[in-house]
Amino acid sequence: MDFKELEKRLVAFRDARGWGRYHTPKNLAISAAVELGELLEHFQWESDEEILEAVKDPAKREAIADEIADVIIYLTLLAHELGIDLDEAVERKIEKNGRKYPIRI
Amino acid sequence: MDFKELEKRLVAFRDARGWGRYHTPKNLAISAAVELGELLEHFQWESDEEILEAVKDPAKREAIADEIADVIIYLTLLAHELGIDLDEAVERKIEKNGRKYPIRI
Amino acid sequence: MDFKELEKRLVAFRDARGWGRYHTPKNLAISAAVELGELLEHFQWESDEEILEAVKDPAKREAIADEIADVIIYLTLLAHELGIDLDEAVERKIEKNGRKYPIRI
Amino acid sequence: MDFKELEKRLVAFRDARGWGRYHTPKNLAISAAVELGELLEHFQWESDEEILEAVKDPAKREAIADEIADVIIYLTLLAHELGIDLDEAVERKIEKNGRKYPIRI
Repeated sequence: MDFKELEKRLVAFRDARGWGRYHTPKNLAISAAVELGELLEHFQWESDEEILEAVKDPAKREAIADEIADVIIYLTLLAHELGIDLDEAVERKIEKNGRKYPIRI
Repeated sequence: MDFKELEKRLVAFRDARGWGRYHTPKNLAISAAVELGELLEHFQWESDEEILEAVKDPAKREAIADEIADVIIYLTLLAHELGIDLDEAVERKIEKNGRKYPIRI
Repeated sequence: MDFKELEKRLVAFRDARGWGRYHTPKNLAISAAVELGELLEHFQWESDEEILEAVKDPAKREAIADEIADVIIYLTLLAHELGIDLDEAVERKIEKNGRKYPIRI
Repeated sequence: MDFKELEKRLVAFRDARGWGRYHTPKNLAISAAVELGELLEHFQWESDEEILEAVKDPAKREAIADEIADVIIYLTLLAHELGIDLDEAVERKIEKNGRKYPIRI
């Protein structure tokens, strides 16, 4: 699934529920931050080693995956509201990063 | 570009720069939060109407798109470290949301 | 209660529970972000007018106050770990802001 | 300086600059999140040991202290807008935490 397809599905999903009027830029950005907070909660008191051990449990891995997915979902909806093409944006950012941090040989 | 392909490119990018040892779950989650903070900065003092007006300017739109892309990039790298398949995770989360919020006819 | 006194109480609280070893800088900073995410959740879908109306209800106001307090509690514990005097830090930052944004007459 | 006094100074500061109309609940909560993102940036790629070593440098410690102070400043202004007494809120939250996590003897 690319971002264009994801965007289409998410917009259809929210329009079927009449949620469009709540999807303002600020509300969607705040929502992404709320979900990222829930993601961070999984890493609050555990060391990196404990986290890597914990995600061997499929239930724990799914719980974390759900939070990452939620952030991506809200960011895709935000991009939609702002007229941002996410496939293009991610591509361009990777290129920018490549120029900013060239590989040292 | 789907998430599997994005993951491959980002992992190749960071391995070419020897950054792998910094990419622990906590560091990557913190990095996503840092970039989300930079995204929020664009919405700090403006109303939703002003934001929607401002993104008509391509430079402003690109600046915001860069921040959204950065969050997605770090989340993709985080998913990689945790053995999470993001295409599957986003698909599953949309289905879960559909069951949680059924369409009322 | 000033920050010095708050710090003392919070350190005594956590030491009485043997939590000190979890209180690393990264864990405490992540904890502040988790609580800030919970604070943002109260503002996710409501307009500013709706929020100001909602906090007239003491229960809602207390729920939001709890989240703000949690962020402050973790930041105070973080400052403790880093050897930062918060009373001094806040005082100095207000002075810096005053120089950065002088009052225009 | 207690929160009541801090609140008074911050409100006087912003009123002297005519910033009151920007200080809506959502804007102030977003601002706290922006500053927390800047705080997290100091912990992005360093281990806890490296952070504790780095803050021995007064300039680094002040840079981090500034970010913590900024979050506290915006939370105090947010509490003001919502009619929340922060001294009372922090006191009450510590008591709640004490009941939730009693000391085991």
